[in-house]
Amino acid sequence: MSFSPLIQSLVEAFRCLPGVGPKTAQRMAFHMLERDREGGIKLSETLQLAIENVGRCSRCRTLSEHELCDICDDSSRDRSKLCILETPVDVLAVEQTGGFNGQYFVLMGHLSPIDGIGPQDLGLDVLLQQIDGAGIEEIILATNPTVEGEATAHYIAEQVKDMGIKVTRIAHGVPVGGELEFVDGGTLAHALAGRRSLL
Amino acid sequence: MSFSPLIQSLVEAFRCLPGVGPKTAQRMAFHMLERDREGGIKLSETLQLAIENVGRCSRCRTLSEHELCDICDDSSRDRSKLCILETPVDVLAVEQTGGFNGQYFVLMGHLSPIDGIGPQDLGLDVLLQQIDGAGIEEIILATNPTVEGEATAHYIAEQVKDMGIKVTRIAHGVPVGGELEFVDGGTLAHALAGRRSLL
Repeated sequence: MSFSPLIQSLVEAFRCLPGVGPKTAQRMAFHMLERDREGGIKLSETLQLAIENVGRCSRCRTLSEHELCDICDDSSRDRSKLCILETPVDVLAVEQTGGFNGQYFVLMGHLSPIDGIGPQDLGLDVLLQQIDGAGIEEIILATNPTVEGEATAHYIAEQVKDMGIKVTRIAHGVPVGGELEFVDGGTLAHALAGRRSLL
Repeated sequence: MSFSPLIQSLVEAFRCLPGVGPKTAQRMAFHMLERDREGGIKLSETLQLAIENVGRCSRCRTLSEHELCDICDDSSRDRSKLCILETPVDVLAVEQTGGFNGQYFVLMGHLSPIDGIGPQDLGLDVLLQQIDGAGIEEIILATNPTVEGEATAHYIAEQVKDMGIKVTRIAHGVPVGGELEFVDGGTLAHALAGRRSLL
């Protein structure tokens, strides 16, 4: 015994969403059909529209429905600084700090030989071409502080080291508002090694 | 600063799903765009198809894309027993027990004067017409064991009491596999009051 075929396929279609198991998918399908058909139609249309129209910015490779994303298209941004990130969500995170006014480059992932993700898949060839002669003074490597993120950062640093550009990596250390007691050993070791003079 | 308009509307469209807040909606939107466009197209199409085609069974009022749902259309089911439930998911739950071979009637909710849900919204007029002269011998009231579910069950029992039909309510008691220590007082009182002779 199961639901009618169409309802069953709707339940299965919801399974493609991240973190959605069989019970949640069932709840979503019935919520849409019983209570929010208008929202369902809107979701269906927006999803189709977004998938058809959202491509990647030709410059920074983030997701955008325009040829150039808003940031790359903004002439008031500082073109001498380039921040390299893993995902479009990271761009938003850095933008929300309000502390960076340069350009971005989004890798859409990190180097991962096991999954067959090499430099070309991250657009590193495009990146090197862009950097070449573009007057960039500093490259900030802001990939995630994971093993793969570190490896990716080092690989990029290695590639650009002969270009005479300053290459920096975001600081590792204790999170603001955290307690030393709960910080892991690796982070604490980094925080000590990277200590700064106050006076 | 936010995402490009189309991505932003996709994030907002995902908010219509139950239990999906801003962060989850964002994760879903980016997952679809970055990693699973095929699944996204499938979800969009299935959602539209289901919303356009899934209506309600003309007999038991459950969700179905056919005029009659599979159960109502099945001539091998016992038409002398009618089980009244709140939602289509409850039908599946009862079917999965394998212990019931009668017909169903789905209210799609419960009486709730505060929300303006009266007998007509639950199709109780349709129900009474159906019962009349249909040879039904027993009506099993299987609405949820909540205040509203109980009230709905009593209201229906009151409506059909002069029809000479046996009206039953599913048993309240301790759940199978549970421990008495953790059962609430109301349930335990019901379990004691409904005790059955073993010998």
